[in-house]
Amino acid sequence: MLSQRVKNLTPYVPGEQPQDRQYLKLNTNENPYPPTPKIEGFIKEFNIEKLRLYPDPLANNLREKIAQRYMVGKENVFVGNGSDEVLSFAFYAFFDSSMGKLLFPNFTYSFYPVYCDFYSIDYDKVPLNTDFSVNINGFLNGEKSCGIIFPNPNAPTGILLSIDDLNNLLERYPKDRVVIIDEAYIDFGGQSAVSLIVRYKNLLVIRTFSKSMSLAGLRLGFAIGDKKLIETLFAVKDSFNSYPIDMLALKIGEIAIEDEDYYRSTTEKIINNRSKLSDELEKIGWEVLPSQANFIFTKKHGVTGQKVYETLKNKGVLVRYFNIEGIKDFVRITIGTKEQLGILLKEVQKCFSGK
Amino acid sequence: MLSQRVKNLTPYVPGEQPQDRQYLKLNTNENPYPPTPKIEGFIKEFNIEKLRLYPDPLANNLREKIAQRYMVGKENVFVGNGSDEVLSFAFYAFFDSSMGKLLFPNFTYSFYPVYCDFYSIDYDKVPLNTDFSVNINGFLNGEKSCGIIFPNPNAPTGILLSIDDLNNLLERYPKDRVVIIDEAYIDFGGQSAVSLIVRYKNLLVIRTFSKSMSLAGLRLGFAIGDKKLIETLFAVKDSFNSYPIDMLALKIGEIAIEDEDYYRSTTEKIINNRSKLSDELEKIGWEVLPSQANFIFTKKHGVTGQKVYETLKNKGVLVRYFNIEGIKDFVRITIGTKEQLGILLKEVQKCFSGK
Repeated sequence: MLSQRVKNLTPYVPGEQPQDRQYLKLNTNENPYPPTPKIEGFIKEFNIEKLRLYPDPLANNLREKIAQRYMVGKENVFVGNGSDEVLSFAFYAFFDSSMGKLLFPNFTYSFYPVYCDFYSIDYDKVPLNTDFSVNINGFLNGEKSCGIIFPNPNAPTGILLSIDDLNNLLERYPKDRVVIIDEAYIDFGGQSAVSLIVRYKNLLVIRTFSKSMSLAGLRLGFAIGDKKLIETLFAVKDSFNSYPIDMLALKIGEIAIEDEDYYRSTTEKIINNRSKLSDELEKIGWEVLPSQANFIFTKKHGVTGQKVYETLKNKGVLVRYFNIEGIKDFVRITIGTKEQLGILLKEVQKCFSGK
Repeated sequence: MLSQRVKNLTPYVPGEQPQDRQYLKLNTNENPYPPTPKIEGFIKEFNIEKLRLYPDPLANNLREKIAQRYMVGKENVFVGNGSDEVLSFAFYAFFDSSMGKLLFPNFTYSFYPVYCDFYSIDYDKVPLNTDFSVNINGFLNGEKSCGIIFPNPNAPTGILLSIDDLNNLLERYPKDRVVIIDEAYIDFGGQSAVSLIVRYKNLLVIRTFSKSMSLAGLRLGFAIGDKKLIETLFAVKDSFNSYPIDMLALKIGEIAIEDEDYYRSTTEKIINNRSKLSDELEKIGWEVLPSQANFIFTKKHGVTGQKVYETLKNKGVLVRYFNIEGIKDFVRITIGTKEQLGILLKEVQKCFSGK
């Protein structure tokens, strides 16, 4: 009764969202600060009668505002239902094993191999360097690939590639293959590759409203790239679901993207908190990878990630670990408010001192 | 630079949503009445801080309320981003040309062949009967098919199959192939096939919040079927996008699905308006197919659908025509309010009398 396709799937498992008790949630990289208060006024005055009509399938107003913010044309912007949907459309549109295998780092966003299974795309994992940074040379050796994708900063390590490194990669990589840079976490300390899309027509930059803009609950993501890539993403969307973004999300997105000042201030707080947390953990003997994201990847010698996770969960604090050889000693901890990180640190000190 | 897949796409073209002037929109089957006023209070009091968190990827509360309304279990309910997304997931999950071709009527929802191209599914179109009703025997003759899909009532004809006809089809069709009944318009006069899911484990019924619930702007659809089918849809969703429904849509959907009384009253108005419009058009020589949907499919002898569309658009009234051999004489007109249909009728009488 089921298709052959579906029998081969191993679905993605999102971070847990437990309903049984209140946890301090430092496990899914949500922003601890609220979204811009300017949304409030819009919501209060929204005329619900409008909901009877379909939303704009081209998301013209939102794309126009995103284009203004990033100083590109509207024709360079695609929006979708969270960056996960944008990624899914991009895998469909650009990666095809008959052109070679897709390349991504061995430790990275764990949805990438799921998309590959979903669309029957062969892939190779390129090992990170020993310091856990993304290995650019690894993408350029060997047989011809059908494309490259990686987050910058990478997840779950948090380590950033510089814009020079990206430029170097794009310069040396074939121009008839698409390179996707997934910038979900770029606002927390990195320099965006958006400025490179004019030079590299094969570069697609994917962003989200979920992290620095505190709108994970809203499901908005976007892609910036050459007009041809964007048109192709529209063809995919219109063969899947004409209207993936509802009217409220479109409008709230417009308000959010304009309030750059607000998000700069919350992002700065997160960067400060990250620096503080990293220092404190290092003081008590934890190893912390140098993160430019809204999370850190850290380990304590002699304690597995699973043990840390379980111990802290027991104390009401959720972090995330990955049961994958090579990174199973680490936990990923989302950067919360100062108060939240104070609670975390207290529990860490209590539970793991002297071990 | 593009995948082979994407080169073969012919995207779906949704009904036009013109931005240049105000039209009387009778072209995309939107409900002319607002959604339940109970949504208002929720929106006004919504705490925007919640938007920083991811929504429930399992949509548990909404699924529970849908289950209560249709007297099935929560495990029998899947929800997605509009019924178009639910359909897309279902095509991926259940239809596979290695099991035979997919069957659907020759005149039906024009997204079906688009999904087939998207997932490389072969299909055959089964001709409607001469009275434009769906031909059940046509699904049962010939080689083994991999599944069946059709809307009930069918679009763009509006003609309904009875529950006895559906039962007859399901009884005779192989039980190891999925049958999807797309009930987008069922609330406007038909009897739902949901009651048959217990007997037929291969039956999936797909519904939407966009039509009778006046929430096209919100993007919510759902499927009801055997637990095994629903689990499979979840596996597909979780290989594509873990959180396709935002927090506001989930909650508004919960409020809407509970207010059955309100929607019964607006639906009755639409049924009355449909009956009135059909009568008036027949009086002035138009042929109107017997519709149980929130639109009618109608033609005037000697005038093409395109001519009717263009003439009315010029007068500020949008209807839809399909440039497809066999139905090109028809236009599809959404049932509006009494006042809207009065305007439409006046224009029709002025423009097409005596022709």
